Amino acid sequence: MRVAYNEQMNELADLLGEMATLAGSAMDTATQSLLQADLVLAEQVISDHDKITDLSAQCEEKAFSLLALQAPVAGDLRSVVSGIQIVADIDRMGALALHVAKITRRRHPNHTLPEEVNGYFAEMGRIAVQLGASAREVLETRDPERAAKLREEDEAMDDLHRHLFTVLMDREWKHGVAAAVDITLLGRYYERFADHAVEVGRRVIFLATGELPTELSATHLPSA
Amino acid sequence: MRVAYNEQMNELADLLGEMATLAGSAMDTATQSLLQADLVLAEQVISDHDKITDLSAQCEEKAFSLLALQAPVAGDLRSVVSGIQIVADIDRMGALALHVAKITRRRHPNHTLPEEVNGYFAEMGRIAVQLGASAREVLETRDPERAAKLREEDEAMDDLHRHLFTVLMDREWKHGVAAAVDITLLGRYYERFADHAVEVGRRVIFLATGELPTELSATHLPSA
Repeated sequence: MRVAYNEQMNELADLLGEMATLAGSAMDTATQSLLQADLVLAEQVISDHDKITDLSAQCEEKAFSLLALQAPVAGDLRSVVSGIQIVADIDRMGALALHVAKITRRRHPNHTLPEEVNGYFAEMGRIAVQLGASAREVLETRDPERAAKLREEDEAMDDLHRHLFTVLMDREWKHGVAAAVDITLLGRYYERFADHAVEVGRRVIFLATGELPTELSATHLPSA
Repeated sequence: MRVAYNEQMNELADLLGEMATLAGSAMDTATQSLLQADLVLAEQVISDHDKITDLSAQCEEKAFSLLALQAPVAGDLRSVVSGIQIVADIDRMGALALHVAKITRRRHPNHTLPEEVNGYFAEMGRIAVQLGASAREVLETRDPERAAKLREEDEAMDDLHRHLFTVLMDREWKHGVAAAVDITLLGRYYERFADHAVEVGRRVIFLATGELPTELSATHLPSA
């Protein structure tokens, strides 16, 4: 029973890690597509998205059969329940990368971004990809201290996001309302991607310690 | 065992229903605060939000102890797993109502909305509240046909959301970029609130039928 549990739990953890890698890679490619107005890259993110959806369904099935066949208790049960919650967060990270790619495609052959905000999105993309990698690392190591650090990495995202809004709100903004609307949505997508990575960390802290860090509660995450 | 399971599952379902009611009511009050630039109503949503967070934690604990103590199988297990996923959706609906209230507070004593878009938000608020009530009804009845109808109700939200963007993008837009940024975010909050209600319906279909309607997959929901 215990051996079977460990084997299946490792499979679930591997699937979650693979999903986190794909979501990070999707956001990386989506960011390149956005910065370069590259339709091929955007289409790649869009067509690759099914892989994340498939993995998401596989994770849910794996977790379900773990509960049904192994009836885990205590820490083992907590791991499976956390897995169910984490899969929803990573699935959402993939969907947000998809949204970025779809905006690139909608504006092609035009650039979505005026040049003066390119730097913000290059940096937000870099932090998002890093948070995806951190989430994967935390899923592998289950280190609650490493997991808590995701929140610090997310602060850099929130700072950039706030600065971006001051640029938009500036009276000197010359690029019109349509560009501002796109940038507002894009900023929100990157910020939410980061929030979900932080939430993965929060879940790992719970499964490692049995305590949810309440100050990191999803509903208290910074809003746009 | 079976009696204890039923009793605890009913308690979990009641808690989820209560959460859905609070989330719907929060969005109702948040919409009023937005339309009337009413700080008292906005503060009420913000201070009441803890109730939703508390219920969310209670639901997670209840589901966890159900799995630990009853080790349910088959349909019973599916109900508990769906409950864990549904609590995350309703929690998020509450957070989105909170975001609306916070924008009202940030702009007070000014009105966030130019008068010409008030009608859109009155209607989006009405549909959001209706979707919250439908989600609650579906949680109570577990009727998969009723659950599938949430998607139709959501189409009205998507239509409004699209129209709203054409108003913003119009060359005749006279209210500047700052108002457009607020409206873009607000539109997104209402749309996501509706998406989460649809997702609750999708989960109920799964627990009633054992099949996930794939075309309703969360990652395929319309993006802004």
